[in-house]
Amino acid sequence: MNPFILNFTPTGMVPRRHDTPHVPISPEEIADQVAQAVEVGITMVHLHARDPDGTPSHDRDLYAEIIRRIRSFAPELVICVSLSGRLRPDFESRSAPLDLSGEAKPDMGSLTLSSLNFSRQASMNAPEMVQGLARKMFAKGILPELEAFDGGMINYADYLLNKKLLQPPCYFNLLLGNPANAQADPLSLGAMLAQLPRDSVWAAAGIGRSQTRAVMMGLAAGGGVRIGLEDNLHYDDARKKLATNLELVKRVHRLAAELERPLMSPAECRQRLNLLPGNGRYGRTPA
Amino acid sequence: MNPFILNFTPTGMVPRRHDTPHVPISPEEIADQVAQAVEVGITMVHLHARDPDGTPSHDRDLYAEIIRRIRSFAPELVICVSLSGRLRPDFESRSAPLDLSGEAKPDMGSLTLSSLNFSRQASMNAPEMVQGLARKMFAKGILPELEAFDGGMINYADYLLNKKLLQPPCYFNLLLGNPANAQADPLSLGAMLAQLPRDSVWAAAGIGRSQTRAVMMGLAAGGGVRIGLEDNLHYDDARKKLATNLELVKRVHRLAAELERPLMSPAECRQRLNLLPGNGRYGRTPA
Repeated sequence: MNPFILNFTPTGMVPRRHDTPHVPISPEEIADQVAQAVEVGITMVHLHARDPDGTPSHDRDLYAEIIRRIRSFAPELVICVSLSGRLRPDFESRSAPLDLSGEAKPDMGSLTLSSLNFSRQASMNAPEMVQGLARKMFAKGILPELEAFDGGMINYADYLLNKKLLQPPCYFNLLLGNPANAQADPLSLGAMLAQLPRDSVWAAAGIGRSQTRAVMMGLAAGGGVRIGLEDNLHYDDARKKLATNLELVKRVHRLAAELERPLMSPAECRQRLNLLPGNGRYGRTPA
Repeated sequence: MNPFILNFTPTGMVPRRHDTPHVPISPEEIADQVAQAVEVGITMVHLHARDPDGTPSHDRDLYAEIIRRIRSFAPELVICVSLSGRLRPDFESRSAPLDLSGEAKPDMGSLTLSSLNFSRQASMNAPEMVQGLARKMFAKGILPELEAFDGGMINYADYLLNKKLLQPPCYFNLLLGNPANAQADPLSLGAMLAQLPRDSVWAAAGIGRSQTRAVMMGLAAGGGVRIGLEDNLHYDDARKKLATNLELVKRVHRLAAELERPLMSPAECRQRLNLLPGNGRYGRTPA
Protein backbone atom coordinates (compact mmCIF):
# COMPACT_ATOMS: atom_id res chain seq x y z
CA MET A 1 0.00 0.00 0.00
CA ASN A 2 1.09 3.60 -0.53
CA PRO A 3 3.17 5.23 2.21
CA PHE A 4 1.39 7.52 4.67
CA ILE A 5 2.42 10.92 5.99
CA LEU A 6 2.51 11.28 9.75
CA ASN A 7 2.29 14.96 10.65
CA PHE A 8 3.15 15.35 14.33
CA THR A 9 1.58 18.25 16.26
CA PRO A 10 2.97 18.07 19.79
CA THR A 11 1.94 21.42 21.30
CA GLY A 12 -0.65 23.64 19.59
CA MET A 13 -2.04 26.94 20.88
CA VAL A 14 -4.37 25.71 23.58
CA PRO A 15 -3.12 23.01 25.98
CA ARG A 16 -1.36 24.24 29.09
CA ARG A 17 0.45 22.43 31.86
CA HIS A 18 -2.62 22.59 34.06
CA ASP A 19 -4.53 20.77 31.31
CA THR A 20 -1.93 18.05 30.88
CA PRO A 21 1.57 17.51 32.22
CA HIS A 22 2.48 15.88 28.89
CA VAL A 23 2.39 18.94 26.62
CA PRO A 24 5.89 20.16 25.72
CA ILE A 25 6.39 23.92 26.23
CA SER A 26 10.05 24.92 26.06
CA PRO A 27 12.13 24.50 22.89
CA GLU A 28 14.05 21.76 24.66
CA GLU A 29 10.90 19.89 25.68
CA ILE A 30 9.41 20.21 22.21
CA ALA A 31 12.62 19.01 20.55
CA ASP A 32 12.83 16.09 23.01
CA GLN A 33 9.34 14.92 22.18
CA VAL A 34 10.02 15.30 18.47
CA ALA A 35 13.15 13.19 18.94
CA GLN A 36 11.10 10.45 20.61
CA ALA A 37 8.52 10.59 17.82
CA VAL A 38 11.27 10.45 15.18
CA GLU A 39 12.44 7.20 16.77
CA VAL A 40 8.98 5.67 16.23
CA GLY A 41 8.62 7.35 12.84
CA ILE A 42 7.16 10.66 11.67
CA THR A 43 7.28 12.52 8.36
CA MET A 44 6.74 16.11 9.40
CA VAL A 45 6.25 18.21 12.51
CA HIS A 46 3.87 21.14 12.99
CA LEU A 47 5.33 23.51 15.57
CA HIS A 48 3.88 26.07 17.94
CA ALA A 49 6.27 28.10 20.10
CA ARG A 50 5.46 29.00 23.69
CA ASP A 51 6.82 31.54 26.12
CA PRO A 52 8.39 30.10 29.28
CA ASP A 53 5.07 30.65 31.12
CA GLY A 54 3.22 28.58 28.52
CA THR A 55 1.64 31.45 26.56
CA PRO A 56 1.64 30.89 22.78
CA SER A 57 4.24 33.03 21.06
CA HIS A 58 5.06 34.30 17.57
CA ASP A 59 8.64 34.93 18.63
CA ARG A 60 11.08 34.27 15.81
CA ASP A 61 13.93 33.35 18.14
CA LEU A 62 11.87 30.75 19.94
CA TYR A 63 10.96 29.15 16.63
CA ALA A 64 14.58 29.34 15.52
CA GLU A 65 15.72 27.53 18.65
CA ILE A 66 13.15 24.76 18.29
CA ILE A 67 13.95 24.29 14.61
CA ARG A 68 17.74 24.25 15.12
CA ARG A 69 17.41 21.70 17.90
CA ILE A 70 15.26 19.43 15.75
CA ARG A 71 17.54 19.73 12.74
CA SER A 72 20.53 18.73 14.83
CA PHE A 73 19.12 15.18 15.07
CA ALA A 74 16.64 15.06 12.14
CA PRO A 75 18.02 17.23 9.33
CA GLU A 76 15.53 15.96 6.74
CA LEU A 77 12.35 16.11 8.84
CA VAL A 78 9.80 18.42 7.18
CA ILE A 79 9.16 21.34 9.52
CA CYS A 80 6.05 23.51 9.51
CA VAL A 81 5.57 26.59 11.69
CA SER A 82 2.25 27.87 12.90
CA LEU A 83 1.01 31.21 11.55
CA SER A 84 -2.06 31.13 13.79
CA GLY A 85 -3.92 34.34 14.49
CA ARG A 86 -5.48 33.22 17.73
CA LEU A 87 -2.87 35.01 19.86
CA ARG A 88 -2.13 38.24 17.99
CA PRO A 89 -4.12 39.07 14.88
CA ASP A 90 -1.73 41.37 13.00
CA PHE A 91 0.13 40.30 9.90
CA GLU A 92 3.56 41.20 11.29
CA SER A 93 3.18 38.93 14.31
CA ARG A 94 1.57 36.08 12.45
CA SER A 95 4.06 36.02 9.61
CA ALA A 96 7.18 36.59 11.75
CA PRO A 97 8.39 32.94 11.67
CA LEU A 98 8.47 33.13 7.86
CA ASP A 99 11.48 35.45 8.07
CA LEU A 100 13.73 32.76 9.49
CA SER A 101 16.53 31.68 7.20
CA GLY A 102 19.39 29.23 6.85
CA GLU A 103 19.16 26.24 9.21
CA ALA A 104 16.16 27.87 10.92
CA LYS A 105 14.10 28.33 7.76
CA PRO A 106 10.84 26.40 7.97
CA ASP A 107 9.79 24.23 5.06
CA MET A 108 6.13 25.02 5.52
CA GLY A 109 3.81 27.49 7.26
CA SER A 110 0.21 26.85 8.35
CA LEU A 111 -2.52 28.61 6.41
CA THR A 112 -6.10 28.32 7.68
CA LEU A 113 -8.24 28.99 4.64
CA SER A 114 -11.07 30.92 6.29
CA SER A 115 -12.36 32.32 9.55
CA LEU A 116 -14.19 29.74 11.64
CA ASN A 117 -15.47 29.02 15.11
CA PHE A 118 -13.72 26.71 17.54
CA SER A 119 -15.86 25.43 20.40
CA ARG A 120 -15.29 28.48 22.59
CA GLN A 121 -13.81 31.17 20.36
CA ALA A 122 -13.75 32.50 16.83
CA SER A 123 -10.61 32.13 14.76
CA MET A 124 -10.23 35.08 12.40
CA ASN A 125 -8.55 34.59 9.05
CA ALA A 126 -9.98 37.31 6.84
CA PRO A 127 -9.48 36.98 3.06
CA GLU A 128 -6.82 39.70 3.01
CA MET A 129 -4.87 37.94 5.77
CA VAL A 130 -5.06 34.55 4.07
CA GLN A 131 -3.90 36.05 0.79
CA GLY A 132 -1.17 38.07 2.50
CA LEU A 133 0.25 35.01 4.25
CA ALA A 134 0.04 32.98 1.03
CA ARG A 135 1.82 35.77 -0.86
CA LYS A 136 4.60 36.02 1.69
CA MET A 137 5.10 32.25 1.70
CA PHE A 138 5.18 32.19 -2.07
CA ALA A 139 7.85 34.90 -2.07
CA LYS A 140 9.91 33.15 0.60
CA GLY A 141 9.73 29.69 -1.02
CA ILE A 142 7.79 28.25 1.90
CA LEU A 143 5.00 25.75 1.24
CA PRO A 144 1.63 26.46 2.86
CA GLU A 145 0.21 23.74 5.07
CA LEU A 146 -3.42 24.33 4.10
CA GLU A 147 -5.81 23.84 7.02
CA ALA A 148 -9.31 22.91 5.81
CA PHE A 149 -12.15 22.40 8.27
CA ASP A 150 -14.87 22.13 5.62
CA GLY A 151 -15.33 21.75 1.88
CA GLY A 152 -15.66 25.50 1.42
CA MET A 153 -12.12 26.01 2.62
CA ILE A 154 -10.91 23.65 -0.09
CA ASN A 155 -12.85 25.72 -2.57
CA TYR A 156 -10.93 28.75 -1.34
CA ALA A 157 -7.67 26.94 -2.05
CA ASP A 158 -8.87 26.59 -5.64
CA TYR A 159 -9.44 30.33 -5.67
CA LEU A 160 -5.89 30.93 -4.44
CA LEU A 161 -4.55 28.54 -7.07
CA ASN A 162 -6.38 30.52 -9.74
CA LYS A 163 -4.92 33.73 -8.34
CA LYS A 164 -1.44 32.13 -8.51
CA LEU A 165 -0.99 32.58 -4.77
CA LEU A 166 -0.60 28.82 -4.44
CA GLN A 167 1.37 26.48 -6.61
CA PRO A 168 0.59 22.77 -6.92
CA PRO A 169 1.11 20.24 -5.49
CA CYS A 170 -0.84 21.49 -2.46
CA TYR A 171 -0.65 19.97 1.00
CA PHE A 172 -3.90 19.87 3.04
CA ASN A 173 -4.73 18.96 6.61
CA LEU A 174 -8.39 17.93 6.67
CA LEU A 175 -9.47 18.71 10.22
CA LEU A 176 -12.61 16.84 11.27
CA GLY A 177 -14.77 17.05 14.36
CA ASN A 178 -14.80 20.76 15.16
CA PRO A 179 -18.39 21.49 16.31
CA ALA A 180 -19.14 24.09 13.62
CA ASN A 181 -17.32 22.28 10.79
CA ALA A 182 -17.04 18.95 8.99
CA GLN A 183 -17.40 15.94 11.25
CA ALA A 184 -15.36 12.75 11.34
CA ASP A 185 -17.77 10.72 9.25
CA PRO A 186 -17.24 9.10 5.85
CA LEU A 187 -19.55 11.43 3.94
CA SER A 188 -17.84 14.61 5.21
CA LEU A 189 -14.36 13.25 4.59
CA GLY A 190 -15.37 11.81 1.23
CA ALA A 191 -16.89 15.09 0.09
CA MET A 192 -13.73 16.95 1.07
CA LEU A 193 -11.52 14.44 -0.75
CA ALA A 194 -13.65 14.80 -3.88
CA GLN A 195 -13.03 18.56 -3.80
CA LEU A 196 -9.24 18.46 -3.45
CA PRO A 197 -7.33 20.06 -6.31
CA ARG A 198 -5.65 17.51 -8.55
CA ASP A 199 -2.29 16.24 -7.30
CA SER A 200 -2.92 17.30 -3.70
CA VAL A 201 -1.38 15.57 -0.70
CA TRP A 202 -3.52 15.29 2.42
CA ALA A 203 -3.63 14.19 6.01
CA ALA A 204 -6.73 13.67 8.16
CA ALA A 205 -6.90 15.09 11.67
CA GLY A 206 -9.59 14.73 14.31
CA ILE A 207 -10.41 17.25 17.03
CA GLY A 208 -10.85 15.82 20.54
CA ARG A 209 -12.59 12.49 20.66
CA SER A 210 -12.82 12.46 16.87
CA GLN A 211 -9.09 11.89 16.63
CA THR A 212 -8.92 8.10 16.42
CA ARG A 213 -11.89 7.87 14.07
CA ALA A 214 -10.46 10.54 11.77
CA VAL A 215 -7.07 8.84 11.76
CA MET A 216 -8.58 5.44 10.92
CA MET A 217 -10.69 6.84 8.11
CA GLY A 218 -7.74 8.81 6.77
CA LEU A 219 -5.48 5.78 6.73
CA ALA A 220 -8.18 3.53 5.23
CA ALA A 221 -8.85 6.13 2.54
CA GLY A 222 -5.19 6.16 1.52
CA GLY A 223 -4.22 9.49 3.09
CA GLY A 224 -1.90 10.68 5.79
CA VAL A 225 -2.69 11.65 9.35
CA ARG A 226 -1.95 14.51 11.68
CA ILE A 227 -1.72 13.54 15.32
CA GLY A 228 -0.66 14.99 18.65
CA LEU A 229 -1.74 16.83 21.77
CA GLU A 230 -2.52 19.96 19.76
CA ASP A 231 -5.75 18.30 18.62
CA ASN A 232 -6.60 15.95 21.46
CA LEU A 233 -5.48 15.65 25.09
CA HIS A 234 -6.87 12.24 25.93
CA TYR A 235 -6.00 8.69 25.05
CA ASP A 236 -9.39 7.19 25.83
CA ASP A 237 -12.89 7.88 24.64
CA ALA A 238 -14.16 8.59 28.17
CA ARG A 239 -11.52 11.36 28.30
CA LYS A 240 -10.20 10.20 31.66
CA LYS A 241 -6.70 9.14 30.68
CA LEU A 242 -4.40 11.91 29.50
CA ALA A 243 -2.46 10.93 26.40
CA THR A 244 1.22 11.39 25.72
CA ASN A 245 2.33 12.43 22.28
CA LEU A 246 4.29 9.22 21.98
CA GLU A 247 1.26 7.05 22.74
CA LEU A 248 -0.73 8.85 20.05
CA VAL A 249 2.04 8.36 17.48
CA LYS A 250 2.31 4.68 18.36
CA ARG A 251 -1.42 4.18 17.91
CA VAL A 252 -1.15 5.56 14.37
CA HIS A 253 1.63 3.11 13.62
CA ARG A 254 -0.41 0.17 14.91
CA LEU A 255 -3.34 1.18 12.69
CA ALA A 256 -1.14 1.73 9.65
CA ALA A 257 0.47 -1.67 10.22
CA GLU A 258 -2.94 -3.38 9.94
CA LEU A 259 -3.17 -1.87 6.44
CA GLU A 260 0.51 -2.59 5.70
CA ARG A 261 1.00 1.08 4.94
CA PRO A 262 4.62 2.12 5.46
CA LEU A 263 5.54 5.56 6.74
CA MET A 264 6.47 8.11 4.11
CA SER A 265 10.00 9.16 4.97
CA PRO A 266 10.83 12.86 5.21
CA ALA A 267 12.99 12.47 2.09
CA GLU A 268 10.13 10.95 0.08
CA CYS A 269 7.79 13.65 1.35
CA ARG A 270 10.23 16.36 0.25
CA GLN A 271 10.29 14.88 -3.21
CA ARG A 272 6.49 14.54 -3.37
CA LEU A 273 5.94 18.18 -2.28
CA ASN A 274 8.79 19.74 -4.26
CA LEU A 275 10.68 20.67 -1.11
CA LEU A 276 14.45 21.03 -0.99
CA PRO A 277 16.21 17.92 0.32
CA GLY A 278 16.87 19.07 3.86
CA ASN A 279 20.36 18.80 5.32
CA GLY A 280 20.93 22.54 5.12
CA ARG A 281 18.54 23.27 2.24
CA TYR A 282 14.98 24.01 3.27
CA GLY A 283 11.70 25.28 1.86
CA ARG A 284 10.27 24.95 -1.60
CA THR A 285 12.35 23.95 -4.60
CA PRO A 286 12.52 27.00 -6.89
CA ALA A 287 10.23 26.46 -9.90
CA MET B 1 -18.33 3.97 22.15
CA ASN B 2 -21.30 2.01 20.83
CA PRO B 3 -20.93 -1.76 20.49
CA PHE B 4 -20.18 -3.17 17.05
CA ILE B 5 -21.67 -6.15 15.28
CA LEU B 6 -19.22 -8.73 14.00
CA ASN B 7 -20.87 -10.77 11.26
CA PHE B 8 -18.71 -13.81 10.55
CA THR B 9 -18.76 -15.29 7.02
CA PRO B 10 -16.48 -18.31 7.10
CA THR B 11 -17.27 -20.10 3.81
CA GLY B 12 -19.22 -18.31 1.05
CA MET B 13 -20.04 -19.68 -2.40
CA VAL B 14 -16.68 -19.36 -4.10
CA PRO B 15 -13.56 -20.47 -2.21
CA ARG B 16 -12.60 -24.12 -2.62
CA ARG B 17 -9.95 -26.25 -0.99
CA HIS B 18 -7.64 -25.73 -3.96
CA ASP B 19 -7.92 -21.97 -3.37
CA THR B 20 -7.18 -22.17 0.33
CA PRO B 21 -6.82 -25.02 2.80
CA HIS B 22 -8.42 -22.79 5.45
CA VAL B 23 -11.98 -22.65 4.13
CA PRO B 24 -14.35 -24.86 6.14
CA ILE B 25 -16.53 -27.14 3.98
CA SER B 26 -18.27 -29.83 6.03
CA PRO B 27 -20.84 -28.98 8.71
CA GLU B 28 -18.35 -30.14 11.32
CA GLU B 29 -15.55 -27.93 9.93
CA ILE B 30 -17.85 -24.92 9.67
CA ALA B 31 -19.13 -25.42 13.22
CA ASP B 32 -15.57 -25.84 14.50
CA GLN B 33 -14.45 -22.55 12.96
CA VAL B 34 -17.55 -20.81 14.30
CA ALA B 35 -16.70 -22.20 17.75
CA GLN B 36 -13.19 -20.73 17.50
CA ALA B 37 -14.60 -17.39 16.38
CA VAL B 38 -17.15 -17.42 19.22
CA GLU B 39 -14.23 -17.76 21.64
CA VAL B 40 -12.72 -14.54 20.27
CA GLY B 41 -16.13 -12.90 19.96
CA ILE B 42 -18.70 -12.67 17.17
CA THR B 43 -22.30 -11.47 17.05
CA MET B 44 -23.71 -13.35 14.12
CA VAL B 45 -22.70 -15.90 11.52
CA HIS B 46 -23.58 -15.95 7.82
CA LEU B 47 -23.64 -19.57 6.61
CA HIS B 48 -23.21 -21.24 3.26
CA ALA B 49 -23.59 -25.02 3.05
CA ARG B 50 -21.37 -27.16 0.84
CA ASP B 51 -21.62 -30.68 -0.48
CA PRO B 52 -18.85 -33.07 0.62
CA ASP B 53 -16.99 -32.32 -2.66
CA GLY B 54 -17.05 -28.60 -1.91
CA THR B 55 -19.87 -27.59 -4.28
CA PRO B 56 -22.22 -24.97 -2.81
CA SER B 57 -25.52 -26.47 -1.77
CA HIS B 58 -29.07 -25.34 -0.96
CA ASP B 59 -29.68 -28.61 0.92
CA ARG B 60 -31.92 -28.10 3.91
CA ASP B 61 -30.43 -31.01 5.84
CA LEU B 62 -26.90 -29.69 5.48
CA TYR B 63 -28.00 -26.29 6.80
CA ALA B 64 -29.90 -28.01 9.62
CA GLU B 65 -26.82 -29.94 10.66
CA ILE B 66 -24.59 -26.84 10.66
CA ILE B 67 -27.16 -24.83 12.61
CA ARG B 68 -27.79 -27.55 15.21
CA ARG B 69 -24.08 -28.00 15.76
CA ILE B 70 -23.57 -24.27 16.27
CA ARG B 71 -26.52 -23.96 18.61
CA SER B 72 -25.19 -26.76 20.79
CA PHE B 73 -22.37 -24.45 21.92
CA ALA B 74 -23.72 -20.96 21.07
CA PRO B 75 -27.51 -21.02 21.53
CA GLU B 76 -27.89 -17.24 21.30
CA LEU B 77 -25.62 -16.59 18.30
CA VAL B 78 -27.61 -14.92 15.51
CA ILE B 79 -27.63 -17.26 12.51
CA CYS B 80 -28.18 -16.21 8.91
CA VAL B 81 -28.47 -18.63 5.99
CA SER B 82 -27.53 -17.80 2.43
CA LEU B 83 -30.31 -17.62 -0.15
CA SER B 84 -27.84 -17.04 -2.96
CA GLY B 85 -28.89 -17.67 -6.54
CA ARG B 86 -25.42 -18.21 -7.89
CA LEU B 87 -25.76 -22.02 -7.78
CA ARG B 88 -29.38 -22.73 -8.73
CA PRO B 89 -31.60 -19.86 -9.77
CA ASP B 90 -35.07 -21.23 -8.95
CA PHE B 91 -37.10 -19.97 -6.02
CA GLU B 92 -37.60 -23.45 -4.54
CA SER B 93 -33.87 -24.12 -4.27
CA ARG B 94 -32.94 -20.67 -3.08
CA SER B 95 -35.61 -20.45 -0.41
CA ALA B 96 -35.28 -24.05 0.83
CA PRO B 97 -33.31 -23.19 4.02
CA LEU B 98 -36.20 -20.93 5.10
CA ASP B 99 -38.34 -24.01 5.72
CA LEU B 100 -36.20 -25.18 8.62
CA SER B 101 -37.93 -25.06 11.99
CA GLY B 102 -37.35 -25.62 15.68
CA GLU B 103 -33.68 -25.65 16.71
CA ALA B 104 -32.69 -25.51 13.03
CA LYS B 105 -34.71 -22.39 12.19
CA PRO B 106 -32.44 -19.59 10.99
CA ASP B 107 -32.85 -16.11 12.46
CA MET B 108 -32.05 -14.41 9.18
CA GLY B 109 -31.75 -15.10 5.45
CA SER B 110 -29.60 -13.20 2.97
CA LEU B 111 -31.40 -10.98 0.46
CA THR B 112 -29.34 -9.35 -2.29
CA LEU B 113 -31.38 -6.35 -3.36
CA SER B 114 -30.66 -6.41 -7.10
CA SER B 115 -28.87 -8.25 -9.86
CA LEU B 116 -25.24 -7.28 -10.17
CA ASN B 117 -21.92 -8.34 -11.66
CA PHE B 118 -19.18 -9.97 -9.65
CA SER B 119 -15.74 -9.85 -11.23
CA ARG B 120 -16.27 -12.95 -13.38
CA GLN B 121 -19.99 -13.65 -13.36
CA ALA B 122 -23.40 -12.04 -13.12
CA SER B 123 -25.49 -12.59 -10.01
CA MET B 124 -29.17 -12.63 -10.90
CA ASN B 125 -31.71 -11.39 -8.41
CA ALA B 126 -34.67 -10.26 -10.50
CA PRO B 127 -37.30 -8.07 -8.81
CA GLU B 128 -39.78 -10.93 -8.61
CA MET B 129 -37.20 -13.15 -6.91
CA VAL B 130 -36.18 -10.47 -4.41
CA GLN B 131 -39.81 -9.80 -3.55
CA GLY B 132 -40.62 -13.51 -3.37
CA LEU B 133 -37.78 -14.18 -0.94
CA ALA B 134 -38.75 -11.15 1.14
CA ARG B 135 -42.36 -12.31 1.22
CA LYS B 136 -41.44 -15.81 2.32
CA MET B 137 -39.13 -14.50 5.04
CA PHE B 138 -41.83 -12.15 6.25
CA ALA B 139 -44.30 -15.04 6.46
CA LYS B 140 -41.82 -17.28 8.26
CA GLY B 141 -40.71 -14.64 10.77
CA ILE B 142 -37.16 -14.61 9.42
CA LEU B 143 -35.28 -11.31 9.18
CA PRO B 144 -33.66 -10.47 5.83
CA GLU B 145 -29.95 -9.75 5.87
CA LEU B 146 -30.06 -7.08 3.18
CA GLU B 147 -27.02 -7.17 0.91
CA ALA B 148 -26.34 -3.76 -0.66
CA PHE B 149 -23.49 -3.25 -3.10
CA ASP B 150 -24.49 0.28 -4.10
CA GLY B 151 -26.81 3.09 -3.09
CA GLY B 152 -29.45 1.98 -5.54
CA MET B 153 -29.86 -1.28 -3.67
CA ILE B 154 -30.62 0.67 -0.52
CA ASN B 155 -33.22 2.58 -2.50
CA TYR B 156 -34.79 -0.75 -3.38
CA ALA B 157 -35.02 -1.62 0.31
CA ASP B 158 -37.06 1.59 0.73
CA TYR B 159 -39.33 0.33 -2.03
CA LEU B 160 -39.75 -3.00 -0.21
CA LEU B 161 -40.49 -1.14 3.03
CA ASN B 162 -43.18 0.85 1.26
CA LYS B 163 -44.64 -2.37 -0.14
CA LYS B 164 -44.66 -3.80 3.42
CA LEU B 165 -42.37 -6.64 2.35
CA LEU B 166 -39.83 -5.46 4.91
CA GLN B 167 -40.42 -4.32 8.46
CA PRO B 168 -38.01 -2.03 10.31
CA PRO B 169 -35.51 -2.15 11.84
CA CYS B 170 -33.64 -3.35 8.76
CA TYR B 171 -30.22 -4.99 8.84
CA PHE B 172 -27.82 -4.16 5.97
CA ASN B 173 -24.47 -5.46 4.88
CA LEU B 174 -22.78 -2.70 2.88
CA LEU B 175 -20.43 -4.60 0.58
CA LEU B 176 -17.64 -2.44 -0.81
CA GLY B 177 -14.98 -3.06 -3.40
CA ASN B 178 -16.77 -5.18 -6.01
CA PRO B 179 -15.45 -3.93 -9.39
CA ALA B 180 -18.85 -2.89 -10.77
CA ASN B 181 -20.21 -1.47 -7.49
CA ALA B 182 -19.43 0.95 -4.65
CA GLN B 183 -15.78 1.07 -3.68
CA ALA B 184 -14.22 1.10 -0.22
CA ASP B 185 -13.78 4.85 -0.07
CA PRO B 186 -15.33 7.36 2.34
CA LEU B 187 -17.57 9.01 -0.24
CA SER B 188 -19.15 5.74 -1.38
CA LEU B 189 -19.67 4.47 2.16
CA GLY B 190 -20.88 7.88 3.34
CA ALA B 191 -23.40 8.15 0.51
CA MET B 192 -24.74 4.68 1.32
CA LEU B 193 -25.02 5.51 5.03
CA ALA B 194 -26.93 8.68 4.19
CA GLN B 195 -29.46 6.61 2.24
CA LEU B 196 -30.16 3.99 4.92
CA PRO B 197 -33.75 3.87 6.13
CA ARG B 198 -34.18 5.33 9.62
CA ASP B 199 -33.36 2.93 12.46
CA SER B 200 -31.28 0.59 10.27
CA VAL B 201 -28.43 -1.54 11.58
CA TRP B 202 -25.44 -2.01 9.29
CA ALA B 203 -22.12 -3.71 8.84
CA ALA B 204 -19.41 -2.85 6.32
CA ALA B 205 -17.75 -5.57 4.28
CA GLY B 206 -14.91 -5.37 1.80
CA ILE B 207 -14.35 -7.66 -1.17
CA GLY B 208 -10.81 -8.97 -1.64
CA ARG B 209 -8.11 -6.46 -0.84
CA SER B 210 -10.74 -3.90 0.14
CA GLN B 211 -11.56 -5.90 3.26
CA THR B 212 -9.33 -4.22 5.84
CA ARG B 213 -10.06 -0.73 4.52
CA ALA B 214 -13.81 -1.38 4.55
CA VAL B 215 -13.63 -2.79 8.07
CA MET B 216 -11.66 0.19 9.36
CA MET B 217 -14.00 2.71 7.80
CA GLY B 218 -17.02 0.81 9.08
CA LEU B 219 -15.70 0.71 12.62
CA ALA B 220 -14.63 4.36 12.54
CA ALA B 221 -18.04 5.35 11.21
CA GLY B 222 -19.79 3.63 14.11
CA GLY B 223 -21.06 0.57 12.27
CA GLY B 224 -20.49 -3.14 12.36
CA VAL B 225 -18.34 -5.30 10.14
CA ARG B 226 -18.70 -8.50 8.19
CA ILE B 227 -15.53 -10.53 7.90
CA GLY B 228 -14.36 -13.92 6.77
CA LEU B 229 -13.00 -16.01 3.92
CA GLU B 230 -16.25 -15.61 1.97
CA ASP B 231 -15.14 -12.09 1.04
CA ASN B 232 -11.35 -12.32 1.07
CA LEU B 233 -8.86 -15.18 1.00
CA HIS B 234 -5.69 -13.34 1.91
CA TYR B 235 -4.28 -11.80 5.01
CA ASP B 236 -1.87 -9.44 3.30
CA ASP B 237 -2.20 -6.76 0.70
CA ALA B 238 0.23 -8.48 -1.69
CA ARG B 239 -2.15 -11.48 -1.60
CA LYS B 240 0.64 -13.93 -0.90
CA LYS B 241 -0.32 -15.10 2.59
CA LEU B 242 -3.58 -17.03 2.84
CA ALA B 243 -5.69 -15.90 5.76
CA THR B 244 -7.46 -18.04 8.29
CA ASN B 245 -10.91 -17.02 9.46
CA LEU B 246 -9.59 -16.71 12.98
CA GLU B 247 -6.83 -14.27 11.95
CA LEU B 248 -9.37 -12.08 10.18
CA VAL B 249 -11.66 -12.05 13.22
CA LYS B 250 -8.75 -11.16 15.48
CA ARG B 251 -7.75 -8.26 13.25
CA VAL B 252 -11.24 -6.80 13.61
CA HIS B 253 -10.96 -7.05 17.38
CA ARG B 254 -7.60 -5.27 17.40
CA LEU B 255 -9.04 -2.43 15.31
CA ALA B 256 -12.18 -2.15 17.42
CA ALA B 257 -10.02 -2.06 20.56
CA GLU B 258 -8.22 1.05 19.27
CA LEU B 259 -11.63 2.75 19.18
CA GLU B 260 -12.71 1.17 22.49
CA ARG B 261 -15.73 -0.27 20.76
CA PRO B 262 -17.01 -3.37 22.55
CA LEU B 263 -18.53 -6.28 20.67
CA MET B 264 -22.31 -6.33 20.51
CA SER B 265 -23.31 -9.61 22.13
CA PRO B 266 -25.74 -11.92 20.32
CA ALA B 267 -28.31 -11.16 23.04
CA GLU B 268 -27.99 -7.38 22.52
CA CYS B 269 -28.19 -7.87 18.77
CA ARG B 270 -31.37 -9.94 19.15
CA GLN B 271 -32.92 -7.14 21.14
CA ARG B 272 -31.82 -4.47 18.67
CA LEU B 273 -33.20 -6.36 15.66
CA ASN B 274 -36.39 -7.65 17.32
CA LEU B 275 -35.24 -11.24 17.15
CA LEU B 276 -36.40 -13.88 19.61
CA PRO B 277 -33.92 -14.48 22.44
CA GLY B 278 -32.30 -17.67 21.14
CA ASN B 279 -32.02 -20.70 23.42
CA GLY B 280 -34.73 -22.57 21.53
CA ARG B 281 -36.61 -19.54 20.19
CA TYR B 282 -35.36 -18.21 16.86
CA GLY B 283 -36.33 -15.79 14.12
CA ARG B 284 -38.24 -12.53 14.31
CA THR B 285 -40.31 -11.55 17.34
CA PRO B 286 -43.96 -11.57 16.19
CA ALA B 287 -45.17 -7.95 15.77
